[in-house]
Amino acid sequence: MAQSKGTVVLAYSGGLDTSCILVWLKEQGYDVIAYLANIGQKEDFEAARKKALALGAKKVYIEDISREFVEEFIWPAVQANALYEDRYLLGTALARPCIARRQVEIAQREGAQHVAHGATGKGNDQVRFELTCYALCPKIKVVAPWRLPEFYQRFPGRRELMDYAKKHGIPVPVTPQTPWSMDENLMHISYEAGILENPKNQAPPGLYTKTRDPATSPDNPDVLEIKFERGVPVKVTNIGDGATRSSALELFVYLNDIAGKHGVGRIDIVENRFVGMKSRGIYETPAGTILYHAHLDIEAFTMDREVRKIKQGLALKFSELVYNGFWHSPECEFLRHCIRRSQEPVVGTVRLSVFKGQVYILGRESPRSLYNEELVSMNVQGDYEPADATGFININSLRLKEYHRLQSKVTVKQDE
Amino acid sequence: MAQSKGTVVLAYSGGLDTSCILVWLKEQGYDVIAYLANIGQKEDFEAARKKALALGAKKVYIEDISREFVEEFIWPAVQANALYEDRYLLGTALARPCIARRQVEIAQREGAQHVAHGATGKGNDQVRFELTCYALCPKIKVVAPWRLPEFYQRFPGRRELMDYAKKHGIPVPVTPQTPWSMDENLMHISYEAGILENPKNQAPPGLYTKTRDPATSPDNPDVLEIKFERGVPVKVTNIGDGATRSSALELFVYLNDIAGKHGVGRIDIVENRFVGMKSRGIYETPAGTILYHAHLDIEAFTMDREVRKIKQGLALKFSELVYNGFWHSPECEFLRHCIRRSQEPVVGTVRLSVFKGQVYILGRESPRSLYNEELVSMNVQGDYEPADATGFININSLRLKEYHRLQSKVTVKQDE
Amino acid sequence: MAQSKGTVVLAYSGGLDTSCILVWLKEQGYDVIAYLANIGQKEDFEAARKKALALGAKKVYIEDISREFVEEFIWPAVQANALYEDRYLLGTALARPCIARRQVEIAQREGAQHVAHGATGKGNDQVRFELTCYALCPKIKVVAPWRLPEFYQRFPGRRELMDYAKKHGIPVPVTPQTPWSMDENLMHISYEAGILENPKNQAPPGLYTKTRDPATSPDNPDVLEIKFERGVPVKVTNIGDGATRSSALELFVYLNDIAGKHGVGRIDIVENRFVGMKSRGIYETPAGTILYHAHLDIEAFTMDREVRKIKQGLALKFSELVYNGFWHSPECEFLRHCIRRSQEPVVGTVRLSVFKGQVYILGRESPRSLYNEELVSMNVQGDYEPADATGFININSLRLKEYHRLQSKVTVKQDE
Amino acid sequence: MAQSKGTVVLAYSGGLDTSCILVWLKEQGYDVIAYLANIGQKEDFEAARKKALALGAKKVYIEDISREFVEEFIWPAVQANALYEDRYLLGTALARPCIARRQVEIAQREGAQHVAHGATGKGNDQVRFELTCYALCPKIKVVAPWRLPEFYQRFPGRRELMDYAKKHGIPVPVTPQTPWSMDENLMHISYEAGILENPKNQAPPGLYTKTRDPATSPDNPDVLEIKFERGVPVKVTNIGDGATRSSALELFVYLNDIAGKHGVGRIDIVENRFVGMKSRGIYETPAGTILYHAHLDIEAFTMDREVRKIKQGLALKFSELVYNGFWHSPECEFLRHCIRRSQEPVVGTVRLSVFKGQVYILGRESPRSLYNEELVSMNVQGDYEPADATGFININSLRLKEYHRLQSKVTVKQDE
Repeated sequence: MAQSKGTVVLAYSGGLDTSCILVWLKEQGYDVIAYLANIGQKEDFEAARKKALALGAKKVYIEDISREFVEEFIWPAVQANALYEDRYLLGTALARPCIARRQVEIAQREGAQHVAHGATGKGNDQVRFELTCYALCPKIKVVAPWRLPEFYQRFPGRRELMDYAKKHGIPVPVTPQTPWSMDENLMHISYEAGILENPKNQAPPGLYTKTRDPATSPDNPDVLEIKFERGVPVKVTNIGDGATRSSALELFVYLNDIAGKHGVGRIDIVENRFVGMKSRGIYETPAGTILYHAHLDIEAFTMDREVRKIKQGLALKFSELVYNGFWHSPECEFLRHCIRRSQEPVVGTVRLSVFKGQVYILGRESPRSLYNEELVSMNVQGDYEPADATGFININSLRLKEYHRLQSKVTVKQDE
Repeated sequence: MAQSKGTVVLAYSGGLDTSCILVWLKEQGYDVIAYLANIGQKEDFEAARKKALALGAKKVYIEDISREFVEEFIWPAVQANALYEDRYLLGTALARPCIARRQVEIAQREGAQHVAHGATGKGNDQVRFELTCYALCPKIKVVAPWRLPEFYQRFPGRRELMDYAKKHGIPVPVTPQTPWSMDENLMHISYEAGILENPKNQAPPGLYTKTRDPATSPDNPDVLEIKFERGVPVKVTNIGDGATRSSALELFVYLNDIAGKHGVGRIDIVENRFVGMKSRGIYETPAGTILYHAHLDIEAFTMDREVRKIKQGLALKFSELVYNGFWHSPECEFLRHCIRRSQEPVVGTVRLSVFKGQVYILGRESPRSLYNEELVSMNVQGDYEPADATGFININSLRLKEYHRLQSKVTVKQDE
Repeated sequence: MAQSKGTVVLAYSGGLDTSCILVWLKEQGYDVIAYLANIGQKEDFEAARKKALALGAKKVYIEDISREFVEEFIWPAVQANALYEDRYLLGTALARPCIARRQVEIAQREGAQHVAHGATGKGNDQVRFELTCYALCPKIKVVAPWRLPEFYQRFPGRRELMDYAKKHGIPVPVTPQTPWSMDENLMHISYEAGILENPKNQAPPGLYTKTRDPATSPDNPDVLEIKFERGVPVKVTNIGDGATRSSALELFVYLNDIAGKHGVGRIDIVENRFVGMKSRGIYETPAGTILYHAHLDIEAFTMDREVRKIKQGLALKFSELVYNGFWHSPECEFLRHCIRRSQEPVVGTVRLSVFKGQVYILGRESPRSLYNEELVSMNVQGDYEPADATGFININSLRLKEYHRLQSKVTVKQDE
Repeated sequence: MAQSKGTVVLAYSGGLDTSCILVWLKEQGYDVIAYLANIGQKEDFEAARKKALALGAKKVYIEDISREFVEEFIWPAVQANALYEDRYLLGTALARPCIARRQVEIAQREGAQHVAHGATGKGNDQVRFELTCYALCPKIKVVAPWRLPEFYQRFPGRRELMDYAKKHGIPVPVTPQTPWSMDENLMHISYEAGILENPKNQAPPGLYTKTRDPATSPDNPDVLEIKFERGVPVKVTNIGDGATRSSALELFVYLNDIAGKHGVGRIDIVENRFVGMKSRGIYETPAGTILYHAHLDIEAFTMDREVRKIKQGLALKFSELVYNGFWHSPECEFLRHCIRRSQEPVVGTVRLSVFKGQVYILGRESPRSLYNEELVSMNVQGDYEPADATGFININSLRLKEYHRLQSKVTVKQDE
């Protein structure tokens, strides 16, 4: 065994990869503290704790960060209507900075100079993870085994990991591995790699775990009312059975249940990673999908048109930054501040129905809407002078007429 | 009767409003040419022709512009992934410049100095209509009765129109009027006004006409393959029965059928009109919804990430311009040119399933994809050096570390 | 004389136009309150007061709003580096909402239902003026004589105004009129119309009034240090003679003196008006030009690169809104808030030289700069690993290589 | 000496650094081809050739790429009004892809697998250089000695380089080194590093080489007329002496002379490098500065307002990409295409005066201007109805009034 290299806090999942990494790090001379974030994934946390200790972890942290994940990371994304490349609700991208932030805190508390993770060298997660660490603690040192030749050359495939596990008494999974990889948190689950790497291959039946197949989902919708304040959901009411949820975490979990039951939130996309390659992913984001639609609706109802347009541009940038791992950056802080400001009037209630993979908006109301029923009415003139529209159109046409005038002149000349 | 004011080409729908306008224009001293665009709406065109002639139209033009609507207006919108305020696929906005363009052509052929329309003074359509007319023929004069006090004060409500109709032998509708107004074309149908003006009111059952209720739609999906070239669909194949469509118009009609049958394309939104008020609309856009999802997918698969980002910004602007009526403008021409250019590599086939109100992407392939299966593979290293990612992350973190350094300094100072 | 139409607050300049308007408004049956804003222009305010009273004004308000003009309107523009169409520093556009805001306050205090102004029907100022009034007091009624046929048809040219003036005892200017029109305030002076309407005509010698001709300006520069806090100048020091100014208004006046003396701030441009036409204007903006350069420099020195890029986009939009008259709008309020936020770290001192029409930046320092001399040094390695740049470049090249690979494939195929 | 590593094409400047690199590369086992681009810098090219051969270069390429630099790189930047961070005209950034493109061509012609350069590991040039190489020839291998520990640890300072030079018979410069570094090409010269690294230090007198000090520049201006076609200068005429230049290269050289003589084009800035640090640079860009102002003017005169706004956004992105080294990228190609398209109407002649460090626009004319003298005239009504402006303003105020209405309601409620 090598000389001591100090303490490393390892983001530990309990799976085969990070278990091998744990042992390997010890082999390299590190004291290893295992850190397992409970961010809403299905997991036997106590079993994971025992396993880590058995593998030689000096200490194990199991941290429930679900609530802060919802309140500090998902809520700003809801406010932004955050969407990467028009489709991806950023489920993994939002979780990384939340997980890594706590990891840095643990490292500081424990006086550890290093943090480690099991993310691969081709993906986005390594970036999201490490940018968070460096932004919050510039002096920290990151150990990323999958980017170290001494590690990845030793473990070119799963077989070598299995051999290593057996040799070091690391328990290997008893269930056969799915031919794809998964990553889950409270907001979403992703499926990628393996047989999904061929972008033409359809996702096999039975892949999905967070949502029911719309083909077998209930034949009756759930109708919900979601109340927003400052662009954030504060209460959900199920019109059918009167159930309500108000605290952030419970509300989000409840929406996951309802959306999952009705098969809402599945997508199959090809996206552009920050490192410059295209990858294919299949995602389920049940509650996030409902909230995306509901927030879009209440925002359009309450926000001024031109503010909305500016905010939309900011949110586009925000989504890209979050995807690329820049949650903790001056520019992302700035954007969150601006977007939060835009949400002050976003207050009101949206009624919607969840059914067979879809969310249908049914109606909305708000004490702060800019919607003016009298003004827009086709039967009432209201405080509106139709003749004004004539001037409005004429002035707007001025530029177009001038352009036509010039085009005609140019064309005539060219014809001569 | 007043002195002759010359000839006016009236955009005629055959309904009560434009029938009354036709008669009223004659009363005002115009020679009226009725123009009825067949843009895919359900209509008895021959009955409308007879009606117009009976009401005193000097001439009637019934023009089938469906094909050019699809090829010259809908296709560029598909290429753009055009979406107004994140939700509206612009069904009406795309139709107006197509309708008005032909109307101006008729006016020029007939030597008419005027064009007229029945759009209201609060809406977007008057703007879309008139900006097109002025852009294509700056000298044209527009008669917009619903903005003329002598007209709208005479007809404050439907009752007055009915009285006028009876008095002038204008046939009145025998079926009771729906408590909302509708506007239909090949791409979509809109429902607004009346009881829908209260944004909280849910759309009544039975309102929808272009799509079946997802609750009663088929229990088996249709699986389609849509082939794109230069960002435009060139062939659709139904995997179930092998049916195919290739010409633009037929392909679009077929997608309308399939999507309609599965209840795809319904939205209920509040949007911001160009004249500055919020309005509530319910829309059905069956084929457009399928094509939106399919194009988004093939584009992401074939287009470079950074080109996509630039193009996304252009498309946002394009959508706003189309909504506001600036299809025929120098800036919209410029944008269409740029977007068209971006679509050169957008080639390939998307497989999708249409089911219960939803479109699910299942897979895609393309001879021009930038997707590189070997490069992205988690099992193959390919032409990729994991260690490079370390440098990439470190350099990207430089700015964040500097920011942290400064923040700490500032904070320390403030604490002193 | 007509029946009383109530009270109108007229934005009065003391010149021929608004004097005639004052009398004409009385003729129309209004009680007229004359309001003359002292916004830094050269003017005999007491003479103007007497003149207004002599012409029948019920009351005269002469309001010194220079200080609020600087602090509440110019400062936010400095923070934004506001520039319309890459060149115009918005001198007039910033003044209008400041002037109109006070006018509305006077109207409210006096219980006047109307406000009036002498802006023409083709320009931007009418829009800036009226949007401010409506935004701050939606019920106000605006009288804009130059858009009323009964007024502009009566006064098609200057001669008719002169005749009217003579007939009504309105003193006419004794000095011959310049063959262009001018508008001045503390920030700038504009020259347009008349012989300048031909965009090819060079501005005649002797036109300029706020800046000396660089050909005859001093042969030695003034060297200044300008200190900024939160993006706003808080102190200017003249290195030559040690003179300092700290209060906003005095500082701005001092910079006007220095810049004017050295011929700084002249431009001759063609710009695009909000109403859709191009117009030609010649402007002098002495202090504004110095501050534009100084602020740009201190901002680049202290602000994070990515925050700067986002802020630059916001400022572009801000400039357009200000130009178009939307200072008092939800979107402009939102932008000012965001821009103000971005300015928190913009602290420090810029040294510059003012000489022969130019501003030269000489150096800068700041306690909050993100500039790190050791990091950037070519002689010191600092906290920087050159090898990281290799990974950074390689990862950035990935996308480009993939694109090349595909292009080659496509090209080969096409060649076959 | 090590075993042969194949052939490398070295970007050779003739200076101490790349001379040492040449010898060092040989030492490492490379066959070295020296490539010296003539891109308009002052240089004794024949002496450099002899020197390279004397140092053991297998072959020397001296390539005059000035003309293609102007036509293919500077002209697109002129069309774009390209400006990085509001100030930098991109003189170095434009040259790099031009130089590297030829280098790759030479490597391909010579069958060399490697290219090498002497750029440092902290700068932008390494990125610009290498991204070009990889984009044009993905298989090329880059040798960047200043990023190789075996090189930069051996040469931590200039003294070690001097020692190495003496030992290997490399001629060392006889003139004392300036305490800053310079990089020159036809478009500009940059000064940075050394004593300039302290951003507070004023540039010493005598630093500038391409422009005369405005304090001693001529007391009479040169007045020029520059004619543009498709946004590119095609003729320059000196009104004073009638001199004209028409070919791209000659025209550009002539403008360099005139601008240099009058001290035009000096800036002192702090900018943000792509690698994430701030750096300070002093630049002279004589001809580029004149063309920036002239093009801005003719573009504003001929281009539609809204096209201009879109193009401005594209150019901002273009400038950033060029700065960061992405000239040869799919997105930059796309942008150049779009910008080129926007320039079709940019035709006409600008008259300007060059004097004491400044460029003054005097007037402009164009056969394709959208400027309409009659329309804008304050004395002629033209084809403009002032009353239309009332409607235009009223409709534009609608949204502002609604916002005010809501704000009042909310405020009242909060007060209760």
